[in-house]
Amino acid sequence: MLENEIYDWLNNYNINTPQYKVFNINEEPDINFYPVALKILSDKVVHKTDAGAVVINIENREALRKAKRCIECNLQQHNIHIDDDDKFLVSKMQPGIELFFGIVNDACFGKVIVFGAGGIFTELFKDICFIDSEADEDEIKNAIAQTKISTLFTKGFRGKKYNIQLIVDLVKKLQQIDVQEMDINPVMLAEDALTVVDARVIKCSSNLGSKNIKYIPELFSPKKIAVIGVSEHKEKIGYALAKNTAENENIFYVNPHLKELFNKKVYNTIDELPLVDTAVIAIPVNAIKETIQQLVTKKVKNIIIITAGFKEAGRDENFLKELAETNHINVIGPNCIGIYTDGLNLTFGTHDIIKGDANLFSQSGAIVAELMDKAALKKIGFENIISVGNMSDVDFADIINSYQGTSAINLYVEGISNGKNLLRAIRKSKSKIRVFKAGKTEVARKAAFSHTGNMAGNYEMFVGLLKAAGAQMLNDVNGLLYPYDFKKVLIVTNAGGAGTVMSDLISDKLYVLSIDEIEKLSQVLPSHWSKNNPVDIIGDASYERYSKALKVADNFNADAIYVLITPQFMTNPEAICKLFVQNNFKTKIFPILLGGEIMQPAKTYLQENNIIFFEELTEAVSFL
Amino acid sequence: MLENEIYDWLNNYNINTPQYKVFNINEEPDINFYPVALKILSDKVVHKTDAGAVVINIENREALRKAKRCIECNLQQHNIHIDDDDKFLVSKMQPGIELFFGIVNDACFGKVIVFGAGGIFTELFKDICFIDSEADEDEIKNAIAQTKISTLFTKGFRGKKYNIQLIVDLVKKLQQIDVQEMDINPVMLAEDALTVVDARVIKCSSNLGSKNIKYIPELFSPKKIAVIGVSEHKEKIGYALAKNTAENENIFYVNPHLKELFNKKVYNTIDELPLVDTAVIAIPVNAIKETIQQLVTKKVKNIIIITAGFKEAGRDENFLKELAETNHINVIGPNCIGIYTDGLNLTFGTHDIIKGDANLFSQSGAIVAELMDKAALKKIGFENIISVGNMSDVDFADIINSYQGTSAINLYVEGISNGKNLLRAIRKSKSKIRVFKAGKTEVARKAAFSHTGNMAGNYEMFVGLLKAAGAQMLNDVNGLLYPYDFKKVLIVTNAGGAGTVMSDLISDKLYVLSIDEIEKLSQVLPSHWSKNNPVDIIGDASYERYSKALKVADNFNADAIYVLITPQFMTNPEAICKLFVQNNFKTKIFPILLGGEIMQPAKTYLQENNIIFFEELTEAVSFL
Repeated sequence: MLENEIYDWLNNYNINTPQYKVFNINEEPDINFYPVALKILSDKVVHKTDAGAVVINIENREALRKAKRCIECNLQQHNIHIDDDDKFLVSKMQPGIELFFGIVNDACFGKVIVFGAGGIFTELFKDICFIDSEADEDEIKNAIAQTKISTLFTKGFRGKKYNIQLIVDLVKKLQQIDVQEMDINPVMLAEDALTVVDARVIKCSSNLGSKNIKYIPELFSPKKIAVIGVSEHKEKIGYALAKNTAENENIFYVNPHLKELFNKKVYNTIDELPLVDTAVIAIPVNAIKETIQQLVTKKVKNIIIITAGFKEAGRDENFLKELAETNHINVIGPNCIGIYTDGLNLTFGTHDIIKGDANLFSQSGAIVAELMDKAALKKIGFENIISVGNMSDVDFADIINSYQGTSAINLYVEGISNGKNLLRAIRKSKSKIRVFKAGKTEVARKAAFSHTGNMAGNYEMFVGLLKAAGAQMLNDVNGLLYPYDFKKVLIVTNAGGAGTVMSDLISDKLYVLSIDEIEKLSQVLPSHWSKNNPVDIIGDASYERYSKALKVADNFNADAIYVLITPQFMTNPEAICKLFVQNNFKTKIFPILLGGEIMQPAKTYLQENNIIFFEELTEAVSFL
Repeated sequence: MLENEIYDWLNNYNINTPQYKVFNINEEPDINFYPVALKILSDKVVHKTDAGAVVINIENREALRKAKRCIECNLQQHNIHIDDDDKFLVSKMQPGIELFFGIVNDACFGKVIVFGAGGIFTELFKDICFIDSEADEDEIKNAIAQTKISTLFTKGFRGKKYNIQLIVDLVKKLQQIDVQEMDINPVMLAEDALTVVDARVIKCSSNLGSKNIKYIPELFSPKKIAVIGVSEHKEKIGYALAKNTAENENIFYVNPHLKELFNKKVYNTIDELPLVDTAVIAIPVNAIKETIQQLVTKKVKNIIIITAGFKEAGRDENFLKELAETNHINVIGPNCIGIYTDGLNLTFGTHDIIKGDANLFSQSGAIVAELMDKAALKKIGFENIISVGNMSDVDFADIINSYQGTSAINLYVEGISNGKNLLRAIRKSKSKIRVFKAGKTEVARKAAFSHTGNMAGNYEMFVGLLKAAGAQMLNDVNGLLYPYDFKKVLIVTNAGGAGTVMSDLISDKLYVLSIDEIEKLSQVLPSHWSKNNPVDIIGDASYERYSKALKVADNFNADAIYVLITPQFMTNPEAICKLFVQNNFKTKIFPILLGGEIMQPAKTYLQENNIIFFEELTEAVSFL
């Protein structure tokens, strides 16, 4: 489309464009809305600026005529011969700050609006944000706040105030426009108006395949479960699965050749099974299709396919999705390590899973195995673990949508195929959603692709959209272990240096001590304590001083108290740790044992007493 | 200074400014170098733009006269009455990209040049870098490369190439100008010229107290050492000091009341001591001054003051610097945990320090204690440890300047007072200098000040200047433990997810496998291995597969191989770890054991065999 046509088209959507007038090439232009820009309107001129076919800041009639002759001369020199089909456009100059808007159709997220700083800085600074086409006003504002240019709306600039509503309104209009791609650049921002000065549109709209989001709460409360493919051979996954489920009477084993395993009857065919609602399958790839069909006839609703060797090995797995749709069943996996829910360990990972509050849903089975093993040592409990594998059918969105609890949901994500559903699920969820996203860099995306067959997608878009929708991004995989969500943290330390480093790590979550609280601490601490959070109780702090400080601080309004213990001279870590075993504090209190050899006995003591503790400051903040 | 005076003053330094002409207020301006800007030149007008006293883009004589009348009218409306003392300035318009330059006098680093993107983006994006007044051309370029606007010089912009030498030359000129403060904004960058359009100067130059950098290599090879203030009471620091030094015959104890300690004679006065070159003092604050004077008469050169309670407790310590200067001695501390050098443990930290390659110089004693304790458990060795304490005399610069080895130097820094010397020492050093800087955020700076009495200073300036001078900044305190400096790292993993996360962490240091190397690995690995670095040897990898992969990879040209082991089904971590004990690989190989309970026996096994390993990916990259 030529510029005037784009203006008219945008006006149909109530989008503001400059006042303009079109003239034939033989006409002497004249208008009454100076200052203006003059441009050629012609299919023959692709790069107008390069061809010298744009003159700006024209102040009067004489200058306008001169500008026209200039352009005509420049075009001749570029060997471009204009004729009666071509025209000139005179448009009103728009003062203000240059912004950039765009519409893209992303393979993962579908239609997404882009907003950011315009002009030469669009390319140099990439100060842009991504806004989902379904984002409401608050979410649009969350996204805009991710840009530096948003300072214009919060603090103003050089004495001028700019109204964010102008941006929000334009974004809302763009959310309604159905195009394949659109670059709107520049858009000029004045104090009271936003005007699109130039735009480029590719109209043919693509329709991404859409998928209904599932609601399957029964996934989290399986009643009767079949384990298909149990084994008596220790080196087989079917053995680990059987071992982890041996003590539960609602679990039924299937193997064509066994009679009994772990004192439990083994059914030789699916047909013989009692009615079950859930099945876990660990059998060879080639037998999967037939087995699912048999399970369907037994009215099984949820099927967890452990078996690997599908998409990630280059083998087709579309039939799994088709089977799920046709038969109204739900398939988790393939290529996963199973699920843990309602106290039932249906994984081939560690046997030792404790009941707790954390929800871990992960695209990597190995990450699940690593975190389960860490949790076993650290005595951290889980409410649910779902290793989603290749997500042939059930994906993150379905799981979040089906979870009815309110504990934090922690996701390990490599690449997803239906971003819109994930955003919808995050918006609706009552839980805090925290995400570790692998594949930030190009090399990592390549690595992710080679092991899951999933495209990792644009990292910045993923992060921007999820944050705006309300999710929190984690920088450390270990953060996925914890269900906590603290906003005000108090630090008690026997080392000023470690306190300073900790302050840097959680600067926006430091609990602010009141004068009254400082006074109360002063009554039990040496005179040269820090009088501030971090509460530095000095290098020679003993059990007694830690105890006094914590008993006072327990009455403050912090969400959590991090107690840093470093191996200073006279420090007896094990003695200090008695504090955490013997007392029943109201506030969540976490010891952080910073050291190695000297700290070992204290760590062992806390483990034996089921007290959660951290060994690094970075670990302690991994979920914040 | 008025604008024309600034232009003239800058021209004296060969700095390019626009062509201009000054007119009396009653003169009709006329020039022959259009397009131009017209401005009032008057002390009465502080904010020219706000008063409507600037008109730009004037194309001809008529417009110029009109602009003058416009300005006169605007000034009247602002109640500013100009008279014969005032003049008009006509200056040639400068096309190009707006840049910003400045000169600041920082309390820590003295004179520093600032460079960055100009215009409205100076304030919004803070895309600036800091350049030391003593930086050479390479260092200036290192600094410029830290800005995003530097893309102009590397990739060009919209088809235009810009020459970085224009920037370097202006910086060099600014390095010669002696002012208190200067804002040069905007500076217009064209393809072949750089022109200062406006500047603001505060001329009175301040002279920061300067300090000569020390060269005291004997600090690292003490021959005879006195420990003043040994104690027989276990709860005293003097006891720990004596215990850590008991077995060395070149160490002499002093305590007025003891005869013998740890089978070693105790001298009752300093006077009785044999000749010593180094003294470590752990006695009450009030006795320090007299003790130093006594040590001076005994020709002691280097004194390490462990005693705390000086600046950090609000007590004056300037006398220490004065004593050092007057008597040509060197004082380390006060308020430190001592030093470890040449195999001698003169600290009151852990007894178990192994000889090795890492140098740790730290402003926090507690951080030293923590890292020494971790090192003891992990079997990591040190070449030198110096806890610098309050740096009353000897500072980081002196220590770096005095170190004659070539191993990496790792610094924990909170705040420094003589930045110029530190930069000089870094430039001269043969070692890789790595720095963890605490006090990035405002709250942390406050915490640092409360426990050391040191101002932490501007974090961005510190980081920018040190990086440009050749130092590397660390994000993780644990990185200070290691002497390694790897540029090409190969990853071997049994978990694709962990490999992906690791790739993100060291994306710029991933070793690139050649086709030939991929072929060689393919001969020993299952067909669906990743064919890429990370080398994903698949979840069912056994000891044998790890062994074959590592034996092949050991012949590649990677600096280091990180071997990731996750607790997958069938993984036997302890068996795999035999590999690292039994083989003598040419390449540095580090196991990374990702897990908890299942990994415990393997960790213990590696510790027992003195093999360095990591427990987290973040730990493994903490020094990269």
